[in-house]
Amino acid sequence: MKEPEPQTAAGKVLWHFSMSLDGFVAGPGHSMDWMTGFTGRDGLVEEYVATTGAILGGRDGWDAFPDAATVYGGLWHGPMFVLTHHPEDAGQADGVTFLNVDVAEALRMALEAADGKNVEVLSPTIGRQLLERGLIDEIDIHLAPVLLGDGIRLYDNPGGAPIPLTLVNGGGRVEVDLRYRPVRGG
Amino acid sequence: MKEPEPQTAAGKVLWHFSMSLDGFVAGPGHSMDWMTGFTGRDGLVEEYVATTGAILGGRDGWDAFPDAATVYGGLWHGPMFVLTHHPEDAGQADGVTFLNVDVAEALRMALEAADGKNVEVLSPTIGRQLLERGLIDEIDIHLAPVLLGDGIRLYDNPGGAPIPLTLVNGGGRVEVDLRYRPVRGG
Repeated sequence: MKEPEPQTAAGKVLWHFSMSLDGFVAGPGHSMDWMTGFTGRDGLVEEYVATTGAILGGRDGWDAFPDAATVYGGLWHGPMFVLTHHPEDAGQADGVTFLNVDVAEALRMALEAADGKNVEVLSPTIGRQLLERGLIDEIDIHLAPVLLGDGIRLYDNPGGAPIPLTLVNGGGRVEVDLRYRPVRGG
Repeated sequence: MKEPEPQTAAGKVLWHFSMSLDGFVAGPGHSMDWMTGFTGRDGLVEEYVATTGAILGGRDGWDAFPDAATVYGGLWHGPMFVLTHHPEDAGQADGVTFLNVDVAEALRMALEAADGKNVEVLSPTIGRQLLERGLIDEIDIHLAPVLLGDGIRLYDNPGGAPIPLTLVNGGGRVEVDLRYRPVRGG
């Protein structure tokens, strides 16, 4: 008797960002020039390039960086889905699908396209909506050693209830101690 | 010949907060009820109780929690300075000095009162002003496993330039990788 083919495991849904210490994933006007002068750990980019099957983003982010070839410094290639109420004026780009659908339906399509790998959600507003529906598996943050004071926040939800989290790469519901010094003349 | 008395080392100026992952040190209206259900590392409170010589806070925080005896769960006792433009209506409290002076002068007084121990700055706005003047030695953050989405931000500075930091308890100008899961039904 032949062994049954192993079922493809469903990929995870990751809300994934580098974020300033004060909670911004982009500066004012989606500026990203603050993301220089510091480094991530070795192998980080390669890890996400290998495990990411599809990307789900929003229209604002796309309009700020309308080039799928720049994801992970051009190292990642795969299907990208961009949610927009106006696909008709979004232009065209290889590998990019512009969708005017419910976020859960967009995520379903992205998971299918990811073919067992993870889906990265690269949008604060889409992430928030998926979080509300219980559809975010993990919030992966690379906390950058910088204060911005203004910009686009990871999580903007006035009037909402606090969302409790548990630290996967740590001891559960614990605080992480971080001590920073301002870089003088920086 | 008698040895000279060792000079008292000046204490450090710490901007010290528990902060939500998304950069808030208090909820809307200074609410702190989100700070439950998670823990800090063992010995944390005792460490800060032992090393803190004085506290410098702002009027908003004082009005929200007008009781010096609650600092570190009542374990810490020492001089507290509260900056306010209107000391005359701030009331009176043992060990609390209400000041209407420049932030740098308030810090000088707090450092003198701390007598070689650290001064804790427990105010976002005072911290920001001291940071601008290069008077913050360390930003000590206990990053709480929770998203708030609204409230009082650690660092609010529209139009300001990014402030580069270096991680003292880590490798310098590096990102810190954090992976969280939402607590289902939390």
